[in-house]
This record gives sequence, C-alpha cells and structure tokens, in this order.
Amino acid sequence: VTFLTKRRTEPIAQPFLLTKRLHPENQETPIHFVETASVSERLFYIRNHFAYPELSTDAWRLCVNGAVWRPTVFFYEQLLAMPAKTIQMTLECAGNKREYFEPPVYGEQWRDGAINQGSWTGVPLAYLFSQTGLQGGAMEAVFIGRDCGKRPDQHEIVPYSRSLPIAKALHPDTLIAYLYNGRPITYKHGYPMRLIVPGWYGMASVKWLQQITVIDHFFEGPFQSIDYNYYPQPDSDAGKNPVTTIRVNSIIQQPLDLAILPCGPQRMEGIAWTGTGEITKLEVSTDGGHTWQPARLERVASEPYAWTRWSLIWHAVPGEHVIMARAYDSAGHYQPLLAAWNRKGYGYNAIAQARVKVESS
Amino acid sequence: VTFLTKRRTEPIAQPFLLTKRLHPENQETPIHFVETASVSERLFYIRNHFAYPELSTDAWRLCVNGAVWRPTVFFYEQLLAMPAKTIQMTLECAGNKREYFEPPVYGEQWRDGAINQGSWTGVPLAYLFSQTGLQGGAMEAVFIGRDCGKRPDQHEIVPYSRSLPIAKALHPDTLIAYLYNGRPITYKHGYPMRLIVPGWYGMASVKWLQQITVIDHFFEGPFQSIDYNYYPQPDSDAGKNPVTTIRVNSIIQQPLDLAILPCGPQRMEGIAWTGTGEITKLEVSTDGGHTWQPARLERVASEPYAWTRWSLIWHAVPGEHVIMARAYDSAGHYQPLLAAWNRKGYGYNAIAQARVKVESS
Repeated sequence: VTFLTKRRTEPIAQPFLLTKRLHPENQETPIHFVETASVSERLFYIRNHFAYPELSTDAWRLCVNGAVWRPTVFFYEQLLAMPAKTIQMTLECAGNKREYFEPPVYGEQWRDGAINQGSWTGVPLAYLFSQTGLQGGAMEAVFIGRDCGKRPDQHEIVPYSRSLPIAKALHPDTLIAYLYNGRPITYKHGYPMRLIVPGWYGMASVKWLQQITVIDHFFEGPFQSIDYNYYPQPDSDAGKNPVTTIRVNSIIQQPLDLAILPCGPQRMEGIAWTGTGEITKLEVSTDGGHTWQPARLERVASEPYAWTRWSLIWHAVPGEHVIMARAYDSAGHYQPLLAAWNRKGYGYNAIAQARVKVESS
Repeated sequence: VTFLTKRRTEPIAQPFLLTKRLHPENQETPIHFVETASVSERLFYIRNHFAYPELSTDAWRLCVNGAVWRPTVFFYEQLLAMPAKTIQMTLECAGNKREYFEPPVYGEQWRDGAINQGSWTGVPLAYLFSQTGLQGGAMEAVFIGRDCGKRPDQHEIVPYSRSLPIAKALHPDTLIAYLYNGRPITYKHGYPMRLIVPGWYGMASVKWLQQITVIDHFFEGPFQSIDYNYYPQPDSDAGKNPVTTIRVNSIIQQPLDLAILPCGPQRMEGIAWTGTGEITKLEVSTDGGHTWQPARLERVASEPYAWTRWSLIWHAVPGEHVIMARAYDSAGHYQPLLAAWNRKGYGYNAIAQARVKVESS
C-alpha cells in the first residue's frame, strides 16, 4: 500500500436521499439542500407501496379499455411519435410532513422532503382518448401500475391503482409521461411510462403504467377507498373525504430547525407551492408569529405548476427565536397555524417553523 | 435516444448517509439499515465542527511536545513501522440522539445514527510516549487537529482540540490510528492520522491530528471547557461536568417507529453498547414497559469495545403497541426511563422506543 502517494479525496459535501425504509424502498429528498429548480434523479424522493415490478417485454405497451369506443394497445414508440407536452412541476406526496402531526400518525414518517420538482414530457391523456373515444357513461379513468403486492390489511395481492374523475383525466396537462428532465424516466420513477397529474398529490401520478380502464362508476380499489382519504376522526370514518389537490404549503430551507447561528445578517430562504393557482405572497415572522413581513418571491410566470422560491435577509440578534413562514395562493388559501389532523396523516400544511438560537461572540 | 434498448437499472434499494448539514458537513449513519459488524466509509457518520482542513506536506508529521523529555516530530512512515494494534469498536458522537431531548436542545439534530463501528489500526499512544518520555508534572495530553475556524461564540479562529487525562492517554488501547477497516483512514474521517479513544464519546477521537502537547494543568480550549460538558440546568452552569465515557445505550433497528405491521411473527432487532464494561442483558417490552423479556444477544467476547446485536421474535397481534428496549452493562449501568436533560444535549440514553400499529387482514 503506497500511503504517501494517496491523495485526499476532494472534500465535497453532498446531500443524499434520506432513507426511510428499504423494503419497499422509501427515501426522502434532502429538500433543505436543494438549490436547483429541477431535482436530479439522484435526489428525487422515492415512494413505493410495493417491491419494484419486473419489466417484461409487455412493459412497453399501454392498454386503454373499458368505456371507450376503440379499446387500444398503444406501443411505447407510438407514444413517442405523438404530440408531446413538457411541464415543469412540483410533485408532492400526500404524506409529506406526516411526521409533524400531533398526535403522531402511523405510516412512513416523512418530514419535508417527500417533494420533488422537475420537467415531465409526455402525451396528453386527452390525446389518447381522442384516439379511443369515450363512451357516454364514462365517469372515471382507472390507472393500473405494474407494481403489486400484499397490504397488511388485505388477503389478496393487489396492484397499485388509482382513478381520476374523467374531467381531470381530460385536462390538457394530465400526461402519459416518458421523459423526466429530458431523459427517459428512470426505472425507480416509473419507466417506461407514468401518469403525471399536475396539481394533485403524488399518489395520482401512477408509475409503471400498464392499463387505463374507463369506468361508469366510482373506483373502489384500496388506494382509492381506504388510503388517500382524509379521516378527521381518530376512531370513526365520519367526515371521510378523498385526497386530491395539493394544499398551499411552504418550507424554510435555511436556517435549519434548532440551529445555532452567529449574530448579524442571515439569509432565510425556502420554497412555497400550491395545487390551487399560484403563490401570491409569503410572509415571514422572526418573533413566533407576532409580526410578519413579506419575503422576496422568485416566480416563473410560465410555469404555473412549479414551486416559488422565497428569501429574506434577517438581522439576527442574540437570543432564541422562532422563525415562521406562511404562504398564500391566488385561490385565497393560506397555510393554517395548525394543520388539520387526520388519521392517515395527509396534507399537512401548517405554517413552517424553525427555532434558532443566535449567539453573541 | 434508443429508448427501447434501455434496460432497467437493478432495483437495489440502498441506504445513504442522512444529511444534517453541509457547511460544515454533518451526516448521520442510516443505522436502522446497518446489518454488518463494520460500517463502510460510505455510511460512516460525519461530524465536523469546521470546514475540512487543507492537507499540506506537513500533514504527514505528528509533533509531540510540552512536558516530555524528548520533543519529537514523528513522520507518518515511522508510525507505520511501529508496533500496531487493531481494535474493533463503536464510535459514538456525544450528541447522538440529541433530537429526542424534551425540551428540545439547539445544535445538530442527531437521531440514532451519530454512531459507527469498525476496526481501527494504529500505534498505542503509550508507545510514542515511551519514546519521548513524560515529565513528572504531566497531567493532560492535548490533541490538536488540523481543522479550525470561527465559532459563533468566539472572535478568534480556533483549532479543534481536546485533552485526555494522562492516565487515559497512556491506556494501551488509546491509539494514533492510520487504518480504518484495514485501509488508510479516508480524508473525511481524519486522514492521515487520528486519535482513537475506545470507550469515550467521539469528540475525544481527534481527526487530522497534527500535534500532541503534554501539559501540567487542565486544558481550557472551547471544545473542552464550553462544549462537551453536561449542563443540567437550563440557565446556569451549576452542576457542569465533562462528557467522557459512552453511556450504556441501545436502539431498536426494526421495527421502525410508527410503522404499520401485519400480524404474526415479527423479528425485532437492534444493537446495544456501553463505554463501561460489556453489555450483559437487553430486555424488550411490547406493552409499553409493563412486562419485559430478555432478547438474544450476539456478543463477541474478544471485542470488548464492539456493540452487541440483539434480537427477539414477537408474535404481533392487531392493535397499537409500544416496543421498548433497555440495555444493561457489567458495570451495573442500565438505560433510564428518562434521559438526563442537559443544555447542550449530550449522552441521551433513555430506553429505546418504537410505536407500532399491527393491522389485521
């Protein structure tokens, strides 16, 4: 071993996915350290309900059937040749920030990083339906992924599948996507084809899409009728209602919660997003919510589904401080002081907080 | 782009370091997913107080001076030629589990993974001192690393440095290490030489070691006299006492906290460790501490500084359960129900807990 010729490795500190579970794989984006508008595949959060599917030769076919006039198998190459659309968008898991619910909620303990942003390219689903036609009674489109397995609460093997109301399925921005950031979607994120539903929580954007079945009733699969519903009561299903659009939300990327800071000017920054319109304002408090001031926003008007960066310089003085961020959107929504607790822990969007201690030197 | 020839990447789910901070770099071992007795460099937690040091040609020299008879510069190659010792040991940051303190404590919010295990090879420091001699008044050895910077509470640039009582410095297992798991210590972990102090929290094992100065008084550097002390009071320094040996401790690796499990046999497993003797017993409760049963231990008698794996099969029945693990050591210590709160958040070692919900299918 030639010790003396050993050079030090370059001391680059890079963030990694935050491992939550390995079987099935669930890992979180280190969102506090993401500075780019598009997240690389390396840091794209991974949320699986089941083991990864095996991809047979069948995987490059998409079957559209049910209440359509011309049931069709679309081949991957055919999709590539169709009119394509690219959308820069925030994809957020409905369980993002679940860890913050009080009392705690069982399930994957996501913090702030079950969220991603990047560009998706694909064929509008409405275009496929223009080829197959839709029958009069069409009410929902059911999307079936290739991933399947056993749930703790069921005896049979079930695939991961979800439905959309037909109007949402026909929205011009609902895509059968095949590129992420200009490259084929990676295997872990749904290669070769995944559904992309801008503005809805991530459970709608079915990966490894194998079949779309149009039905004339409400779909009742377990990921539709058991999971991904808000249950406001701990012990009953009263008030149950489905999880759909992304709630207005934000994070404080810097400073980190419970950080110790020197006094003087400190840059506070983060991101804000919503599934209903656009972010119109982000207010920051450095005194636990007594006073608020607007942050600087970096909005890209041409990207209605993208997150908005915010920042503000704070002149930190010694002591303990509670920093808060509250986003507002163009639909009149804003982050509540307390999140609406629900038994499965979806849609947490309370005002973001970071407690800091500023030291004098 | 040849979409059809693209093969799926192998769907291996691997854990990563858990990023806590990038400047300076602080990342946690994904300890819940570590199954090996030695952790690879890739998953070895990283705890820095400052930016990484530049390594000049000087870096391969270790200066020993102060209250010694023959102040000496030892060259790296000289160390490699001296009698070496290899120790398999647990290295734990004093701030490990800081996040669990209630009320919360400012600083790096480590969970369970500011801990590592692997083998260290190096020269016993006592051997170096046998070459230099020690003067009669020698009271402490001060270890100075090459990393330095500004602390939020100080005006000047300070190096990272720590002292040991001379008796601990002379302990035959206190090493000037140059190999980790049989290979040169990687740059991020202290290449070319770091101090290794088995049984003490990690702050003692100074990285990028450049100088050892023997003194006839107590060392008063900020990492000795400000940080790495237990301050039991929130607002005064009453009861201040130094952080030294690792407290008896354990974690539950599986199941994960707030997991949803199917009913039937479930393997519970984890690790236990102590800086005072060896682990003699680990008890598990599945009813929130009402009843306890001993887990199976896998101890390696020849490795007194290594952690002990524990496991137990549990026949899970539907409902919500609080699983607890409590380790005991040969010095008569055991994990308390509540950790001793202290202002800087060191030495958290309360009974480990995992809340789980078992579902019926």
